[in-house]
Amino acid sequence: MINIAILGHGVVGSGVAEVLEKNKTHISTKAKNEINIKSILDLREFPDLDYSNKFTKNFNDILEDDSIKVVAEVMGGINPAYEYVKACLAKGKSVVTSNKELVAQKGDELLKIALENNVNFLFEASVGGGIPVLRPISQCLAANDLYEIVGILNGTSNFILSKMIDEKMSMEDALSLAQKLGYAEKDPSADIDGHDACRKICILASLAFGKHIYPSQVSTEGIRNITLSDVEYADSCNRVIKLIGKTKLVNNKTVIAAVYPALVSRDNQLSSVNGVFNAIMVKGDAIGDVMFYGQGAGKLPTASAVVADIIDCVKHLQARKYLFWDSAVDNYVSDSLEDTVKLYVRAQADDITKALDEINAVFGNAECLNRNNQAKDELAFITPASSDRKLRQQISKLQKSKAVSILHIID
Amino acid sequence: MINIAILGHGVVGSGVAEVLEKNKTHISTKAKNEINIKSILDLREFPDLDYSNKFTKNFNDILEDDSIKVVAEVMGGINPAYEYVKACLAKGKSVVTSNKELVAQKGDELLKIALENNVNFLFEASVGGGIPVLRPISQCLAANDLYEIVGILNGTSNFILSKMIDEKMSMEDALSLAQKLGYAEKDPSADIDGHDACRKICILASLAFGKHIYPSQVSTEGIRNITLSDVEYADSCNRVIKLIGKTKLVNNKTVIAAVYPALVSRDNQLSSVNGVFNAIMVKGDAIGDVMFYGQGAGKLPTASAVVADIIDCVKHLQARKYLFWDSAVDNYVSDSLEDTVKLYVRAQADDITKALDEINAVFGNAECLNRNNQAKDELAFITPASSDRKLRQQISKLQKSKAVSILHIID
Repeated sequence: MINIAILGHGVVGSGVAEVLEKNKTHISTKAKNEINIKSILDLREFPDLDYSNKFTKNFNDILEDDSIKVVAEVMGGINPAYEYVKACLAKGKSVVTSNKELVAQKGDELLKIALENNVNFLFEASVGGGIPVLRPISQCLAANDLYEIVGILNGTSNFILSKMIDEKMSMEDALSLAQKLGYAEKDPSADIDGHDACRKICILASLAFGKHIYPSQVSTEGIRNITLSDVEYADSCNRVIKLIGKTKLVNNKTVIAAVYPALVSRDNQLSSVNGVFNAIMVKGDAIGDVMFYGQGAGKLPTASAVVADIIDCVKHLQARKYLFWDSAVDNYVSDSLEDTVKLYVRAQADDITKALDEINAVFGNAECLNRNNQAKDELAFITPASSDRKLRQQISKLQKSKAVSILHIID
Repeated sequence: MINIAILGHGVVGSGVAEVLEKNKTHISTKAKNEINIKSILDLREFPDLDYSNKFTKNFNDILEDDSIKVVAEVMGGINPAYEYVKACLAKGKSVVTSNKELVAQKGDELLKIALENNVNFLFEASVGGGIPVLRPISQCLAANDLYEIVGILNGTSNFILSKMIDEKMSMEDALSLAQKLGYAEKDPSADIDGHDACRKICILASLAFGKHIYPSQVSTEGIRNITLSDVEYADSCNRVIKLIGKTKLVNNKTVIAAVYPALVSRDNQLSSVNGVFNAIMVKGDAIGDVMFYGQGAGKLPTASAVVADIIDCVKHLQARKYLFWDSAVDNYVSDSLEDTVKLYVRAQADDITKALDEINAVFGNAECLNRNNQAKDELAFITPASSDRKLRQQISKLQKSKAVSILHIID
């Protein structure tokens, strides 16, 4: 029997306890050991639970208990999770976490401490909720040189965009609905301003390309300014708007990482990922494109990934899993404005004909878009492919029209 | 340095050698060891290759070489692959294979021999080519009780169906094209009659539910009889025809497994899997639905999965991966006709009105379908959900119409 502890008894933490209890028999078989929750850290009390006697408010009860071999950190946030995880690893306990903020900010440091103490630090649940993606990237695609990852990494924003696309709901109404259904927080900023997706693309990029990338190095734009008119223009060219996290290797040396809303072609698999679902498309030199799809959040899906990591730690108490990346180095992350892209532009113009003449003169073959009930002073077009920086300079210099919305194109 | 051998230097075998050479540095890092191809078994000679000195025509050169720790079997077929794999495992060598026929027929026996000899027998490439699916099911979804797997498991038949759907190509023309492009063999039976998909659903069912299922226990129907009229009726109700492999747990006791062409709703993620791509949707009690998508065949994608298994064996020379299922037991596989399904029926009738009256009398609320240029003596409908067996009996007893095509519905 192996003792474990859970730090935090919120949505995910209670899900972890539930899954461990519900599927006990078959989890023991997989782990080749019975897994026993010895302690749960939470400041609240849960007198009505079967396992109310397992709760403690004192982290040291867990840290100093040498019989506890594996700790699941599911509190979220940097403090005190960071100190707790560091202390557990240093004490020779393996740690699993669903905490994307922690891994995106402190992953390299915690992986190094785990290595030094010959224990495991696993965090499958930090990206894509329950979707298996970090372990497949690290193990199953080990034979590949990976060069790009593109994903829909935030279920809440994807839910909002899906409602705007499928039901022509306004951004405000879709956000209210998401909040009512419990998909979005009262302060929805982490989801709709792209911070959550940003943390996840940091983790994916760090794992795929081998060096830590911090959220501050990722150009991040959310979906707050998307309007139904953008949705309609996208539809007119057989595209849908998705919040995309993207990272790619440039010249095998530097890395670009960005989060932005994009008009995704309906021919792209990512375009059919709807509602609260997530999907991560990984590109490698041997494998081509592979995609992982599923529920990116939620109590039981996330708990499923945390418990899989616990099982892996229990099986590998004497051995380390290979999951590692190095610390950041200078000049490793390139400005995403250097990337070659196509841009969608919605603009206002007093004289549409003159504005289009100018646009065609500047961009050569811009693709002009139309929608129903298009306002008389509104136009929209897609630029040819060029450097993001150069395109934005060209757009800002247009005299006859004024850009209102600029979004990326993903074919 | 760890020595390995490759049995077979066909498409996959040469791909394995290529990937191991091309991504040597980073594969060594992952495997924590340099991997050296010491011998390659093939009856042919390849004098122009850099590594022509590694070839042998004598299997015993590999079997008796105690310095060879891992063997990749990529010959295909049961004989002599079965004898070779058995002998290698018994000699204490770990074996990886891409051979779905071998795993579907002999998986339980080979897993048992591997267990007895404390070596690994891995076969990620046998399902979904390069798509990571077996390892994620076994490891990442370990916390779940899985209850259903539905997949598009054969790229060739999916390519043919995609051409019929997107370009209104006839079955014959699409098959010829697939043969011309090298996707289909001269004798295309394994692909288009469902045998290949059948082997893969056997492997998935065995792994997910823990007991071996043989191809002979799986009701298997291919795509040979699909016509463009079926494609059009499917389109009329917002569906596409896909060759589906499906397995599910019934009452937590028995298992149903089947391969058949089905009209898949466009709301289902599987409907957008086009061309030679494969996708496997796995359903578990905690995770909900997860889907794995990618190239299901091809030299480098398949080699990518074989090499990932080789890396895993090299890393675990002293430890066993948990990947196992038991032998078959009596009455474990239920007749798939017991499953509750909806069926699509295309039929001929002299008097359409009378035929529809009868259909509505028999089925209550059958959904009638229409297509452009519908022949005067043709009708099509979708039954309500009921037992497959009962529905087929009802269809066969219809007096006023004669069923020409009966296909499954997947919502």
